[in-house]
Amino acid sequence: MSKRALSITREANFPDWYQAVVRDGDMAETSPVRGCMIIKPWGWGVWERIQAELDQRIKDTGHENCYFPLFIPMSFIAKEAEHVEGFAKEMAVVTHHRLKNEDGKLVIDPEAKLEEPLIVRPTSETIIGDAFQRWIKSYRDLPLLINQWANVVRWEMRTRLFLRTTEFLWQEGHTAHATRDDAMNETLRMLEVYREFSEGVLAMPVIAGEKPENERFPGADNTYSIEAMMQDGKALQAGTSHYLGTHFAEAQNIQFQSAKGQLEYCFTTSWGVSTRLIGGVIMTHSDDDGLRLPPKIAPRQIVIVPMLRDKPEDAELLAYCASMEQELKAAGIRTLVDAKPVKSAEKRWSWVRRGAPIIVEVGGRDVASGNVTFMRRDRLRDGDKVISVTSPRVEFVAAAAELLTDIQNSLYAEAKKRLDENIVTGISSFDAIAQYFGAAAADDEGGAFRGWVKVPWSKPEGGELEAITDRLKELRLTIRNAPLDQEALQCNCVFTGAPAKEFILIARAY
Amino acid sequence: MSKRALSITREANFPDWYQAVVRDGDMAETSPVRGCMIIKPWGWGVWERIQAELDQRIKDTGHENCYFPLFIPMSFIAKEAEHVEGFAKEMAVVTHHRLKNEDGKLVIDPEAKLEEPLIVRPTSETIIGDAFQRWIKSYRDLPLLINQWANVVRWEMRTRLFLRTTEFLWQEGHTAHATRDDAMNETLRMLEVYREFSEGVLAMPVIAGEKPENERFPGADNTYSIEAMMQDGKALQAGTSHYLGTHFAEAQNIQFQSAKGQLEYCFTTSWGVSTRLIGGVIMTHSDDDGLRLPPKIAPRQIVIVPMLRDKPEDAELLAYCASMEQELKAAGIRTLVDAKPVKSAEKRWSWVRRGAPIIVEVGGRDVASGNVTFMRRDRLRDGDKVISVTSPRVEFVAAAAELLTDIQNSLYAEAKKRLDENIVTGISSFDAIAQYFGAAAADDEGGAFRGWVKVPWSKPEGGELEAITDRLKELRLTIRNAPLDQEALQCNCVFTGAPAKEFILIARAY
Repeated sequence: MSKRALSITREANFPDWYQAVVRDGDMAETSPVRGCMIIKPWGWGVWERIQAELDQRIKDTGHENCYFPLFIPMSFIAKEAEHVEGFAKEMAVVTHHRLKNEDGKLVIDPEAKLEEPLIVRPTSETIIGDAFQRWIKSYRDLPLLINQWANVVRWEMRTRLFLRTTEFLWQEGHTAHATRDDAMNETLRMLEVYREFSEGVLAMPVIAGEKPENERFPGADNTYSIEAMMQDGKALQAGTSHYLGTHFAEAQNIQFQSAKGQLEYCFTTSWGVSTRLIGGVIMTHSDDDGLRLPPKIAPRQIVIVPMLRDKPEDAELLAYCASMEQELKAAGIRTLVDAKPVKSAEKRWSWVRRGAPIIVEVGGRDVASGNVTFMRRDRLRDGDKVISVTSPRVEFVAAAAELLTDIQNSLYAEAKKRLDENIVTGISSFDAIAQYFGAAAADDEGGAFRGWVKVPWSKPEGGELEAITDRLKELRLTIRNAPLDQEALQCNCVFTGAPAKEFILIARAY
Repeated sequence: MSKRALSITREANFPDWYQAVVRDGDMAETSPVRGCMIIKPWGWGVWERIQAELDQRIKDTGHENCYFPLFIPMSFIAKEAEHVEGFAKEMAVVTHHRLKNEDGKLVIDPEAKLEEPLIVRPTSETIIGDAFQRWIKSYRDLPLLINQWANVVRWEMRTRLFLRTTEFLWQEGHTAHATRDDAMNETLRMLEVYREFSEGVLAMPVIAGEKPENERFPGADNTYSIEAMMQDGKALQAGTSHYLGTHFAEAQNIQFQSAKGQLEYCFTTSWGVSTRLIGGVIMTHSDDDGLRLPPKIAPRQIVIVPMLRDKPEDAELLAYCASMEQELKAAGIRTLVDAKPVKSAEKRWSWVRRGAPIIVEVGGRDVASGNVTFMRRDRLRDGDKVISVTSPRVEFVAAAAELLTDIQNSLYAEAKKRLDENIVTGISSFDAIAQYFGAAAADDEGGAFRGWVKVPWSKPEGGELEAITDRLKELRLTIRNAPLDQEALQCNCVFTGAPAKEFILIARAY
């Protein structure tokens, strides 16, 4: 029997552990629809916090939210496919608009076939670009800064809750600008918003950088990403920001009249993060007792568990808890009294597995002495022993907000230390990279913790790059990005031997 | 030329006026996808306010948000169709999951045909019921109170922005209970939440009541609605709440073990409101100058228009506006300074058409004297003349919150008066109803303002009810609901002559 609240450890089997955290943390579950998930209330509460925090930042940087149709006419996709190489084609296609009864059975009505099939949006560049083309007339209409929160569908063969699902939820920003510089500034501004949000709210440290040519969004001139390190050492691409040049504008005729009266193409960008972030949070912070949520995104930051005994004294206990709840709420803390008729030990462990940042237990003795007993979820144990602290209630309440800040910071510090300590430098050849990572498990799962390596390269392109990425692929490795923060370098490319232009990160990845 | 800010009046053509308000108010537009709309930033801002206000009420009544898949397996729908009569079959059907290139053209890949077609959710009873069946084991799991905010698709033949679109956005609540009483109380509780929300936030008075048998949601034992009166006298069903008995529970095997250890079916409910509410707000409050938004849902409650002259003095003017904006924001008022390089008269009228509750204009003279000049959108004119008031800035800022409350209340009072004065009673026969409404326009549009009639009926069922509704249909009339608030009655049914059981409302409707 495991000594921890989950039946499996990270060490034993990381992918199975991930599934256990999601399931036992009441975050999400698979649905009867292949590849689509049900996000349960606790998981949805996390997404609501993510949406609220990020939405504020998107608005603060001058963007306006709006909403575009779920469906995209197939002709729009066809037009994009003409302009864009490497365009993914796994999409849900709507072909009919009616069912009918036939011999007592419900069937698709063949007479209700659509003249033009509709695609469930995999992303909205084409349908939003079509609106931009109508909305933008003059340089006075620029920049046009739009965002939408929406569900999108990409037909995935292998799915995993939050990390890769057929339907997922995201925000997609789409902007149009008069100049290359404006568009590039926007691309990098939103990358920085994602970095700050990821580190400041999700407590998930990331490396912001530019993707290599072969990993660009189809149609992008430059694709930037933030990459986070999971506890198995793999990288998770947590957000992307694309500089699209005039490719989409040319394909969709998005033009404006300049101040000089000339008709010019707009420069456009797009950028997005999705419910995948929740998978990243889980794999960054959770331990063998389950989820650990950063306070800023925990639906409930403090959960109070009264140790009910089904006796008359319970009333006093509940009143004690309720008044404390009021005090904490008044301090702006999301608080819950879990008064369900369930054993308190069971409730305590369910909140441990759900990752509530602070779990308070209150028994008769605490009421009598004016105390509370609490656990910090981020420092749950000393060895195998669970740490709980008893403190005067007044002091606990007065210090609660500060305690939550400390938990937020300590989760970040722990993850930041892991990231910083596990980016290996000094590897100077392709063979050394292969040797460092060792043979990958055939199923791309598990294997020893290796972290990432940071190597100099000469930024090869085209066929030369392809040969490199093919060999990396055999090792189940990918180039993550070239970090924006670059040290000076005077060495040669590990792949080509030519003088290096920049450092890049290489890792196994989700 | 019209003397008003729109090119068309309510009087001249109500449906065209509605379209003009939506368009000139920058709320939404049609998209290249048949029946699907683009909700523009100003319209989306209204929806965000609606969501925030209603979501708080849904949470305050103990519900938790979550998220279920966009797609529903066709077998789920088939099962429901077996159990439910009058089930609508106009739905978007996904049959394939991949496109491919063929001779340089993008086509549907016939090899990517789904084994089982997927339906884009028209509503989620079946997929949520499937989860309820797994989640509910014992009476301790009840009540289960769930809500989701989602997009849904119903293939509509005739669409109109906000009022009836193929894709629309809504919230759908789904709950399961141990007893009939609990479920019925929930059904009526949420109806009351909708009523209070509609009147208190949207300033849209409604009549809450029960729908007749023929207007029930397929599978419901009782359907309740709130009905609002539009300015053309027609009724708009603005929200519904359904008591589903055990129909869905039996179809989906949603059972629980009672305290006595017996296996019993749950009693379920569902309830929803949608982006249609925005159509209701528009047709309740707007005038021939465009939209008038109740302050509680206005994305910007006060818009400050500086009268810029492209001269050095502009800097002082902008500073004056910016500091006032800060003061108003500090008072919790959503404020915008519209400093776009456009003529101030043009900006003023664009905000009139968008329905900003208070529009402030600031010129050099105002700065010199420490004044502001403002318009209340709800009292824009005296005859044809636009009313603007000049007041010391300090006083305006101090009274702004109160002024917004007054605008909110005055919009409600105006609409309430219209509703109260236009429910006609005392009609005592079917012929008199027909005579009162007169011949309907063939296209169901326009015609003189008639309001609603309130008549006593004996609550006939089955074939008898059908004959009545058929005749009403010929007159383009429908029974809206039987108001929950009923006066005592001692008279006969206008249809059957039998002793009446209750009053019902009859109207033309959207």
